[in-house]
Amino acid sequence: MSTRERLLEATQELLWERGYVGMSPKAIQREAGAGQGSMYHHFAGKHDLALAAIRRTAERMRAAADADLSGPGTAADRIGAYLRREREVLRGCPVGRLTQDPDVIADPELRRPVDELFDWLRTRLSEVVAEGVRAGELDAALDPEDTAAAIAAAVQGGYVLARAAQSAEPFEHAVRGALGLIRTKS
Amino acid sequence: MSTRERLLEATQELLWERGYVGMSPKAIQREAGAGQGSMYHHFAGKHDLALAAIRRTAERMRAAADADLSGPGTAADRIGAYLRREREVLRGCPVGRLTQDPDVIADPELRRPVDELFDWLRTRLSEVVAEGVRAGELDAALDPEDTAAAIAAAVQGGYVLARAAQSAEPFEHAVRGALGLIRTKS
Repeated sequence: MSTRERLLEATQELLWERGYVGMSPKAIQREAGAGQGSMYHHFAGKHDLALAAIRRTAERMRAAADADLSGPGTAADRIGAYLRREREVLRGCPVGRLTQDPDVIADPELRRPVDELFDWLRTRLSEVVAEGVRAGELDAALDPEDTAAAIAAAVQGGYVLARAAQSAEPFEHAVRGALGLIRTKS
Repeated sequence: MSTRERLLEATQELLWERGYVGMSPKAIQREAGAGQGSMYHHFAGKHDLALAAIRRTAERMRAAADADLSGPGTAADRIGAYLRREREVLRGCPVGRLTQDPDVIADPELRRPVDELFDWLRTRLSEVVAEGVRAGELDAALDPEDTAAAIAAAVQGGYVLARAAQSAEPFEHAVRGALGLIRTKS
């Protein structure tokens, strides 16, 4: 792995674990096994490195969610696949956790990839719900935008509940509860 | 307000805004208008102060949720009141945000009031859902524990989505979506 790559991966991990507020350039260099000079050769500083790392983490999350939501099967199958996907529940969401980071939220550049990811996710979920309603597969009373937000929120809030309990159980309950929204008509 | 009280309130605000990782004893003293000597007279240090502040914030949140969930009305009315309660959406949840704070989660003493609050909330919501199902008011297919977790997660995840967008709108969509779970039978 190139030094640039190691610096990026170390920053992605540290942002996930400690957030921007809790991440020092020293810790990045230590995790990446790179010197200060080499870090500043590849990136202008902590901000520049964090921006590249957040963009990359958000891209990966988007690709993973899209694989579920644009895969085969009915609307309920695809939303079910998204909700049930295996996750590192106790680590929390690497993108969602950044919304609790005051220095990310206060910085429009760092916040943009976070905002764009969740905006995309809600839009995509909403399209799949609308498809299911049109196909007569899902309850016609479901508002696609509201249902999409509730599904995305169940996952993000599931992480919050699981980290509080230090157990994946509340996450699994939240996901099963949210599946109730897309119960196919009997 | 006594100095002790000012120190506690300042710590509650700083924990909400910046988390434990991002809060320095200096900032607490500045916000409270208290000197270092006076802070260490009342509290053993940042940890002791944070523990008292987290306990108090969790107690207030529990009282507010219980007022909705144990108030008058049907099960759906009470869960609706909980979901629709006015919140400072863009600030996020003062307790939920602590689950993204590595130093809170790694410390069993600081995590305990956070864990206890969400455990209580899921149990209480689950009791109200079970009541509604027994009364024939809510869909008998609803699992109380799953539905309770999905409702609590919709609120916590709603904050995440709203902070990402810097707009209360995704929170409101998530709450309306979650209300779909407790649609009363027609």
